[in-house]
Amino acid sequence: MISQQSDSLPASSNVIGEEYPCINPDLGVTFRFLAPGAARVQVMPGTMPRPGESNGLGQGPYEMRKDEQGYWTVTTPPAVPGFHYYSLLVDGVAVNDPASETFFGYSKQTSAVEVPEPGSTYYSPQPVPHGEVREHWYYLKATSAWRKATVYTPPGYDQHPAQRYPVLYLQHGGGENETSWTKQGHANFILDNLIAAGQTVPMLVVMECGSTGQRRLPTLRAPAQSSFQEFMQQIVASFDSLIEELAPEIDASYRTLADREHRALAGLSMGAVQSLNVGLKRLDLFSAIGAFSGPAPEELDAQRTFGGVFADPETFNRRVHLLFLAAGTGEPVHEQFNRNFADWLEKIGIHVAYYASPDTAHEWQTWRRSLRDFTPRLFHW
Amino acid sequence: MISQQSDSLPASSNVIGEEYPCINPDLGVTFRFLAPGAARVQVMPGTMPRPGESNGLGQGPYEMRKDEQGYWTVTTPPAVPGFHYYSLLVDGVAVNDPASETFFGYSKQTSAVEVPEPGSTYYSPQPVPHGEVREHWYYLKATSAWRKATVYTPPGYDQHPAQRYPVLYLQHGGGENETSWTKQGHANFILDNLIAAGQTVPMLVVMECGSTGQRRLPTLRAPAQSSFQEFMQQIVASFDSLIEELAPEIDASYRTLADREHRALAGLSMGAVQSLNVGLKRLDLFSAIGAFSGPAPEELDAQRTFGGVFADPETFNRRVHLLFLAAGTGEPVHEQFNRNFADWLEKIGIHVAYYASPDTAHEWQTWRRSLRDFTPRLFHW
Repeated sequence: MISQQSDSLPASSNVIGEEYPCINPDLGVTFRFLAPGAARVQVMPGTMPRPGESNGLGQGPYEMRKDEQGYWTVTTPPAVPGFHYYSLLVDGVAVNDPASETFFGYSKQTSAVEVPEPGSTYYSPQPVPHGEVREHWYYLKATSAWRKATVYTPPGYDQHPAQRYPVLYLQHGGGENETSWTKQGHANFILDNLIAAGQTVPMLVVMECGSTGQRRLPTLRAPAQSSFQEFMQQIVASFDSLIEELAPEIDASYRTLADREHRALAGLSMGAVQSLNVGLKRLDLFSAIGAFSGPAPEELDAQRTFGGVFADPETFNRRVHLLFLAAGTGEPVHEQFNRNFADWLEKIGIHVAYYASPDTAHEWQTWRRSLRDFTPRLFHW
Repeated sequence: MISQQSDSLPASSNVIGEEYPCINPDLGVTFRFLAPGAARVQVMPGTMPRPGESNGLGQGPYEMRKDEQGYWTVTTPPAVPGFHYYSLLVDGVAVNDPASETFFGYSKQTSAVEVPEPGSTYYSPQPVPHGEVREHWYYLKATSAWRKATVYTPPGYDQHPAQRYPVLYLQHGGGENETSWTKQGHANFILDNLIAAGQTVPMLVVMECGSTGQRRLPTLRAPAQSSFQEFMQQIVASFDSLIEELAPEIDASYRTLADREHRALAGLSMGAVQSLNVGLKRLDLFSAIGAFSGPAPEELDAQRTFGGVFADPETFNRRVHLLFLAAGTGEPVHEQFNRNFADWLEKIGIHVAYYASPDTAHEWQTWRRSLRDFTPRLFHW
């Protein structure tokens, strides 16, 4: 058995007690897998919506080599800090790494490796008061079924039963679900730390699966252009009908400030599409909107884009307290679009905030940083 | 592609939208897996602590057959209703089924299939008020690390901020963790339904990983006899130090009734070992103890077993309001032991309650039923 380098550390995304995958000092990742009977094993980084882009683990696949005991190993080049999905290809069949925890991505439970960002503590548990992550079960009439939302309650929620809180609705990406913003994104720790530092006001965060269908959603991976529009329409309609039932359910179940001034909506990738399309249409519900790593809308035309909501900048700027766009510089197509979109909005007189995450791709480090930049701006109006 | 039988239903343990595994009318399970490149694929039911016993899916492995598209399928004989772990063996390598949700078992994220019990509604969400399942993050000094407990709060907990509640500490089995009693066991739905029916008093349920070590615990699978004693000592010492910190943490964080009269401890399999060994020693903390499918202690001797706690039956019966043992008739070794243990306790004058789950094995249907039988008995003293 190959023994771990003494200065390497098991990834925090591993099952407790598993030494591999481990992170080397240069941020290369060493993977190991026991499969004496396999003829070929490879590590395959999670694929990206844009061909040629990497999720931070590089392009792969990486060929593993087998030792006498049947352990396959490989070490990648230095990885970009962040949270990177991957699969093992065992004789060409994509499977999970049993040493990894699983995370809902690509519409299934998927392996991932956490490559730590040197010096960053904002998304890990620190010695500060912690909020809770709750499974909230409710009956959704649109699907005639019981389902659960994930609800973050801030520190002190139980201890101050007279206090009411603003609410951020926060949506995952394509192929993910209501568990992703906390499991993959560590949204609860990001909020805990920002609230403790006095940078973000205590708020509830509601995370739901962005589909009201019984069927899972398709992912955003390389859809054909014709089905892409259909996909967009489907996910927007789906979230539109979800929020119609979800917001009253949350207001009835938690001590919310139940008005548009205290309700924000944000999402990443597919969730950014939902946030822009549904949020900008439902300004009766929301007064702040965030879109992290969203794809491009069809056109930029003040009279037509998003139903013409930008046609009267003065009215828009009075009603919408925050419109926030973000992308990583390691996802150049998304970054270019979002920057263009922000520039165009400014040009036509719409107030917009823009955040670019240095060096990170279409993955969770971009969205953790976006959340860190976004939430301190909320609910000061 | 083989199409699903029209009267078959996708397992509720599947990823949403996945049609396979599906449950046929005779409770046989049809599995399907896409692997055009594999030479051999088998379905392997989760192994049991006693050789020759089945978890309800039968012995396996079941050979799958490949069609022209590369889909492998097989249908098992009728399965016993319950929650059954399984793996796919791809050219001999055990992997998860991507169509299944994952559940922490065998010290990793594992596939499982839910075979419904005809007519049973007690462990699924019903139109009744629902409690919440919360991630409670706290710092455990014994490990110098942040970790999370799972806490069930009963319906109405937030709405009645002056009410205080009794607490059941509920432990998982070997190779499982703090998520298992709700994810695999549906403990939250069992409590919701019993509380709604007025059969169980509203209570908090605290579920933690039964190890304070940084390393995961070994499983109970076929340990060598010498290491078995060591294993027992380790898990008992581990839980002993955990509960020392966990109980005050819970009492400080939730509105508990913080005395022994309102604190119960129960567990399954490995958790039964912890419940009996720690609970019977810590009668200052607990007044009710449940052991579901526990293994046999070394000897039955009133002066020596569990530190001689049974030596004075009158004192014991006055202090311990409930001692509860359970096992499934489909796990004959465990059932025989627990029945003998209960018989012996009665013979020496110790009050004990015994529950036998008909036809179920060393798996979650036994433990769901045990919990259903156990909790209505709690906290009426």
